[in-house]
Amino acid sequence: MTDLIENIPEILLMGPGPSCVPEEVYEALRAPTLGHLDPLFIEIMDETKERLRLVMKTDNDLTFPVSATGSAGMEACLVNLIEPGDRVLVLVNGVFGGRMAEIARRLGAEVDTLDVPWGKPVDPAEVERVVSKREYKVVSVVHAETSTGVRNPVEEIGPILKLRGALYVVDTVTSLGGIDVRCDEWGVDALYSGTQKCLSCPPGLSPVSFSQRALETIDRRKSKVPNWYLDMSLIKSYWEGKKRAYHHTAPINMIYALYRALGLVQAEGLENVFARHRKSHEHLAAGLREIGIEMFVEPAFRLPMLNAVRVPDGVDEAAVRSRLRESHRIEIGAGLGPLAGKIWRIGLMGHTSKEENVDRLLGAMRKVLGR
Amino acid sequence: MTDLIENIPEILLMGPGPSCVPEEVYEALRAPTLGHLDPLFIEIMDETKERLRLVMKTDNDLTFPVSATGSAGMEACLVNLIEPGDRVLVLVNGVFGGRMAEIARRLGAEVDTLDVPWGKPVDPAEVERVVSKREYKVVSVVHAETSTGVRNPVEEIGPILKLRGALYVVDTVTSLGGIDVRCDEWGVDALYSGTQKCLSCPPGLSPVSFSQRALETIDRRKSKVPNWYLDMSLIKSYWEGKKRAYHHTAPINMIYALYRALGLVQAEGLENVFARHRKSHEHLAAGLREIGIEMFVEPAFRLPMLNAVRVPDGVDEAAVRSRLRESHRIEIGAGLGPLAGKIWRIGLMGHTSKEENVDRLLGAMRKVLGR
Repeated sequence: MTDLIENIPEILLMGPGPSCVPEEVYEALRAPTLGHLDPLFIEIMDETKERLRLVMKTDNDLTFPVSATGSAGMEACLVNLIEPGDRVLVLVNGVFGGRMAEIARRLGAEVDTLDVPWGKPVDPAEVERVVSKREYKVVSVVHAETSTGVRNPVEEIGPILKLRGALYVVDTVTSLGGIDVRCDEWGVDALYSGTQKCLSCPPGLSPVSFSQRALETIDRRKSKVPNWYLDMSLIKSYWEGKKRAYHHTAPINMIYALYRALGLVQAEGLENVFARHRKSHEHLAAGLREIGIEMFVEPAFRLPMLNAVRVPDGVDEAAVRSRLRESHRIEIGAGLGPLAGKIWRIGLMGHTSKEENVDRLLGAMRKVLGR
Repeated sequence: MTDLIENIPEILLMGPGPSCVPEEVYEALRAPTLGHLDPLFIEIMDETKERLRLVMKTDNDLTFPVSATGSAGMEACLVNLIEPGDRVLVLVNGVFGGRMAEIARRLGAEVDTLDVPWGKPVDPAEVERVVSKREYKVVSVVHAETSTGVRNPVEEIGPILKLRGALYVVDTVTSLGGIDVRCDEWGVDALYSGTQKCLSCPPGLSPVSFSQRALETIDRRKSKVPNWYLDMSLIKSYWEGKKRAYHHTAPINMIYALYRALGLVQAEGLENVFARHRKSHEHLAAGLREIGIEMFVEPAFRLPMLNAVRVPDGVDEAAVRSRLRESHRIEIGAGLGPLAGKIWRIGLMGHTSKEENVDRLLGAMRKVLGR
């Protein structure tokens, strides 16, 4: 029987995620599977929670990886906090903000959006203006908008919401482990992320964290969470406490990989990790300038790990991506939605984020574009 | 920094899942991560669907692994087919039937249950009686009730429902790959499973399949699926068709592992796999009888892969499990709910299901029980 897995080549993953996975993380992924209530596995769970708290900068008890990918983390945060009829404000400047609004609507919320042109950051003064006119139970925003390469000023929006009493939901799928995330200091009530971006782990889990205020909101719900799999009031008895109760069978080996990946981030040191992301980003921006490729986002709000760049006039963007993949074993990402065909998204996330990888991409781009 | 992964021992997994994972599957799990829209990964997706169709015995187009564990597969089947106010009948003779009813209620369905004592199978004549009195949009049942070790006569219930026009949802989490599952022949409209049972793959994915009639029901929905992550109308554009659209980032490496695990099942041959499960089950039942341990379920409805056995009088069941784990590196499972303390659940699933493993367990049981 043919086996397509045997010959999978090593691709330099410079798209919007997944990113390259270090050997040590692959090794952890294939460690012997334990039972989901095995005492050693419970130790690994507890230590994974502790490691997540360090990278998220939080003391929140309920901090753990949801057993599904990043979009399920988004759903988990919203479905637990929102009940039908709740007023929700979503700050939208890309695909993932739009997705939050869509999920909130499906949950029966009264959703308002503050729409900002794609490629621009959300303006905290605008948020202030909107929340002073109407009361919201939940306000949500994406920290690192993967569809545009924009960093939103999450740290400035938090204090504004605190004054109004709204719950603050923040998407850190692409930011966590690449730029500073300060869950507690910024007043975040529900935060979610993914493993396959700056944490350099394969996709499959979504780390989340809920504040005490978020948990109290969940306790006060009038209706049951309409999503059994993601109901925090049930899941927490598996992830917390002295006696663990079965809820669902956790993805054991993926949790090994996340545990190990978080260990690597800690061993390098968060500040060093952030500096490495900044440095390889600057190296990329300078190199692209030399071959006449412009960045899509203004410098102050550029994400170091997700570089949106303009496709030069007259270039067939799909053909370039395809040649990079076929002849150079490099993956870069296409634009999404209104940016399809107009930008490329070059990821420098986690283990991918090294100057030598940037040089390899620049060399390949020169060849493919003939510059 | 301590690393708990380095010293994970090889445990003989004889609980209710996860089961032992073959070396070849671990190797696939750690193959290089590809992008979720990489052309080679799309080939692997397509072949995984094809392999799932073979083991499920279906021609259903929409057959693929949901990006989360088995319980999310249950949720996926129900949340896509049920709208508020729909009448749903759940056949309940264990934890997992109960969970289906709970999920359906949370979705706003009018749920009736046909409750059968735990340890007994559902009686098709009873189903006939209930569905002849009231019309149901959806009827759901668990094929292999993991909490009790009972096989329900799914093949006899299907034709009854067909006459009434109800959609038939079947949980094959524990049965798939261990006993015969005939999705199309039995008239199943939505089927879900897990990877960590008889498919011998780590937990993390839930293979599902939807019939044409199920898809038409989804197309005719009045309300959007209140679960964005599991909305089949969105996910199918990632898993089907010539041009794949991003929905969420699939758990790449878990899909490699499932692909490989399904390949091993095919290479052995489904009939041989079923015979091996039967044989090691019979070997276990005979060996347990010798040391005075009785089976909980009557022979005709016993599951070969999940052996519920009565804890002998006066035995501290938790202490036995703990000694098996600590001194013999064997995991067996406890009873759930009303069966807690009364039964053990001994899994003989997939790669675990071998006579030599049964002998190892029997030897250890003799020592621990002093028999």
